[in-house]
Amino acid sequence: AEESESEVIKPHQGINQEPIPLQIKRDGTDVYVEMTSQITDIEIQKDKPYKAWTFNGEAPGPLVVVNEGDTIHFTLKNMDPSIPHSMDFHAVHAAPNKKFADVMPNEEDTFTYQASYPGVFMYHCGTAPVLSHIANGMHGTIIVKPADGYPTDNEVDKEYVIIQNEWYKYNDLDDMTNGEPSQVVFSTKALEQGQPNTNGVLNSLKDEPLLAKVGDKVRLYVNNVGPNEVSSFHVVGTVFDDVYIDGNPANHMKGLQTVMLPTSGGAIVEFTLKEEGMYPMVTHQFNHVQKGAVGFIKVTAD
Amino acid sequence: AEESESEVIKPHQGINQEPIPLQIKRDGTDVYVEMTSQITDIEIQKDKPYKAWTFNGEAPGPLVVVNEGDTIHFTLKNMDPSIPHSMDFHAVHAAPNKKFADVMPNEEDTFTYQASYPGVFMYHCGTAPVLSHIANGMHGTIIVKPADGYPTDNEVDKEYVIIQNEWYKYNDLDDMTNGEPSQVVFSTKALEQGQPNTNGVLNSLKDEPLLAKVGDKVRLYVNNVGPNEVSSFHVVGTVFDDVYIDGNPANHMKGLQTVMLPTSGGAIVEFTLKEEGMYPMVTHQFNHVQKGAVGFIKVTAD
Amino acid sequence: AEESESEVIKPHQGINQEPIPLQIKRDGTDVYVEMTSQITDIEIQKDKPYKAWTFNGEAPGPLVVVNEGDTIHFTLKNMDPSIPHSMDFHAVHAAPNKKFADVMPNEEDTFTYQASYPGVFMYHCGTAPVLSHIANGMHGTIIVKPADGYPTDNEVDKEYVIIQNEWYKYNDLDDMTNGEPSQVVFSTKALEQGQPNTNGVLNSLKDEPLLAKVGDKVRLYVNNVGPNEVSSFHVVGTVFDDVYIDGNPANHMKGLQTVMLPTSGGAIVEFTLKEEGMYPMVTHQFNHVQKGAVGFIKVTAD
Ligand SMILES: [Cu+2]
Ligand SMILES: [Cu+2]
Ligand SMILES: [Cu+2]
Ligand SMILES: [Cu+2]
Ligand SMILES: [Cu+2]
Ligand SMILES: [Cu+2]
Ligand code: NA
Ligand code: NA
Ligand code: NA
Ligand code: NA
Ligand code: NA
Ligand code: NA
Ligand SMILES: [Zn+2]
Ligand SMILES: [Zn+2]
Ligand SMILES: [Zn+2]
Ligand SMILES: [Zn+2]
Ligand SMILES: [Zn+2]
Ligand SMILES: [Zn+2]
Ligand SMILES: [Zn+2]
Ligand SMILES: [Zn+2]
Ligand SMILES: [Zn+2]
Repeated sequence: AEESESEVIKPHQGINQEPIPLQIKRDGTDVYVEMTSQITDIEIQKDKPYKAWTFNGEAPGPLVVVNEGDTIHFTLKNMDPSIPHSMDFHAVHAAPNKKFADVMPNEEDTFTYQASYPGVFMYHCGTAPVLSHIANGMHGTIIVKPADGYPTDNEVDKEYVIIQNEWYKYNDLDDMTNGEPSQVVFSTKALEQGQPNTNGVLNSLKDEPLLAKVGDKVRLYVNNVGPNEVSSFHVVGTVFDDVYIDGNPANHMKGLQTVMLPTSGGAIVEFTLKEEGMYPMVTHQFNHVQKGAVGFIKVTAD
Repeated sequence: AEESESEVIKPHQGINQEPIPLQIKRDGTDVYVEMTSQITDIEIQKDKPYKAWTFNGEAPGPLVVVNEGDTIHFTLKNMDPSIPHSMDFHAVHAAPNKKFADVMPNEEDTFTYQASYPGVFMYHCGTAPVLSHIANGMHGTIIVKPADGYPTDNEVDKEYVIIQNEWYKYNDLDDMTNGEPSQVVFSTKALEQGQPNTNGVLNSLKDEPLLAKVGDKVRLYVNNVGPNEVSSFHVVGTVFDDVYIDGNPANHMKGLQTVMLPTSGGAIVEFTLKEEGMYPMVTHQFNHVQKGAVGFIKVTAD
Repeated sequence: AEESESEVIKPHQGINQEPIPLQIKRDGTDVYVEMTSQITDIEIQKDKPYKAWTFNGEAPGPLVVVNEGDTIHFTLKNMDPSIPHSMDFHAVHAAPNKKFADVMPNEEDTFTYQASYPGVFMYHCGTAPVLSHIANGMHGTIIVKPADGYPTDNEVDKEYVIIQNEWYKYNDLDDMTNGEPSQVVFSTKALEQGQPNTNGVLNSLKDEPLLAKVGDKVRLYVNNVGPNEVSSFHVVGTVFDDVYIDGNPANHMKGLQTVMLPTSGGAIVEFTLKEEGMYPMVTHQFNHVQKGAVGFIKVTAD
């Protein structure tokens, strides 16, 4: 039983649109990306679904990966019967009022722009009030791979994506504006076939930890999509050998215990796991850990 | 009608001192700066004036621009009939108890110090309780121009100043200490004759956007004067090509989507606007956008 | 009279274990560190003791200083009659479930790991719920001295440690999770014999300021142990000449007015004090200054 059913707006009541996979096709440096905006139940806690406003039925939305210099031809198909939605990729140069424009209910539109900078970028719906659209689930991560790679590419054994997001009272703009988050959660998105791909729900990375082997250097692409809180991202039991702020190879830091992520900020963090065991990932703002912000990496012998 | 009239302290009731322009004169590397502390109504929202404690009748106060290595001869004329005020420039080396000292009501005093470091620095009243003085409006920005410039000086087409500040319930130290901001706002200060110069009020940079041309590289001098909140400063539709943390040329970052500003922190951010349109500036802490933290840059064809 | 006596858990009532000095011995690059977990009254405000969960009877716990590359043999003697405790050093590589493991009441255990990275690192109890253990006082700082030093070592005249921590309602996990801090405080820990060594209590660095001479370049090892809040660390009356984020020589910034510390983050900040007088240290999040986050450096003539 959904506690918040009464808060669901009329046209969304009873709707639970099946997740639709992201479509992405490449033709040289032209990349064709198709996404949906849709209304889909996300089970933040067991038996406590949240009728999320989503991209493709996921919250955070599906991971998008392109190369530096690519031209993105982006199509948004708005399956929401009642509300316009839109797409703001932090990775691109585009006039927001034209290329991050609203797509009306049951319509679709296509926009073209370039990914000029490498890094780990947030994307989100930019329809007003933006806070409602992000906090209801319309956020995600786009990775732009650098043309010349990272100086530490050869050292990395495993790569994962970690996204931090907050949830508030159901579609409650006052709580989103003036309150504290009900949950703060981590999710992971598959970088390749076979990797886990989760929503931002409690325990998803506790019940099924990320995996590594003893001695692995692990790279995490981390993104704090908010909508409101900053993050102090930390992995227990190790130190970050290398950090690239917002994922840009030029912003290289060394030996960090914790990386400060502004809201919407990204980073690549790399670290070595020297012993078998369970390594928690947290934001070191521990009130947020108390609300769910923890995941695990399980390290086993070779 | 001023809602908060009852909260105004007795000696300030009925006072609304006309803004007095900053005076600044140069003699070689000696710079003579004269400012006032005064009580002036600031219309945070239409028809909702806030009887602000200000420098020169502006909140944030007037922009001060000097050169690295300058000696500043600073005079504060305290026009407040009842409360001492003072000046703490983050840009200088000075013994606070002597050179950031209180100036009594209806008195003036002069202090001398050097601006040894280039950058974007906060200034504020440092009279106890400092939180009241900052939150009631006594904050602003001093820019110290680097002797050797920035490596990107030649690329920049337009320059503006953006200041973020919060407002609380009128002169309510408990709300300032324990509450959330009522408004979070952006203002701009004129770097040169003819540029807009606004207070930190709702919609000032929505009603009258900053202006740029297609292809311009824009530089913003950004300063988060608080008093309490950090900022995740972001411009929609672009990526920051170059960022200088606290405005120091040595702290150069590249390709950022968002810059983390501690409370009182500054930055120079530079970005290219490739298409005609409207580009919002925000803190990506979207609860603060909901409370007003948004401004626009309008980009037109050549 | 302790206001919160009723909140103290049964087995802790009436207990006030005398502080026990940290033991640290070196044999080549093997360092033997012995600490206790114990229940000790900390007088946050005069006549308002807080029956803290501590390391060695201090909150923050005693400063630990080792060298880059050292092997740490760490023994935790748990003197708490009722609750397990543990130790998570941010400076080391260790499987958390094995080497940051719980030590049962009245037991002790020894763990071995290496300090591979130089810097200013947090340590804390990692026993669940971690938020309770940190917020009740189980946090501190470990400094790992770099094998090759800092480029500015020769310029530094005085060195001190500053730790920022928050206090909440006594052992109230709901207030720790959903509330705002009751106090935000600074403490210092002795780097050498004769330096002050304080708990995180109100006014400790106001009543007895740190000392320096005119012209001194002062280095502070700063650590924000939270548990929840970020810090905007600033010293009034000067500018940071040099900053090393998390204390790593590779993360060198220049000319900062304020350094952004994530929760658990560290930094080395160095600055010159050019005139006699009193220089306040604050987090520029001034609601936290209002709750106690201020200390002083007193500068006298040679
Ligand atoms: Cu939407
Ligand atoms: Cu004042
Ligand atoms: Cu200040
Ligand atoms: Cu955005
Ligand atoms: Cu403990
Ligand atoms: Cu930790
Ligand atoms: Na809430
Ligand atoms: Na760690
Ligand atoms: Na408020
Ligand atoms: Na952007
Ligand atoms: Na509280
Ligand atoms: Na200062
Ligand atoms: Zn939307
Ligand atoms: Zn919060
Ligand atoms: Zn490591
Ligand atoms: Zn004042
Ligand atoms: Zn807040
Ligand atoms: Zn760009
Ligand atoms: Zn503990
Ligand atoms: Zn807070
Ligand atoms: Zn200096």
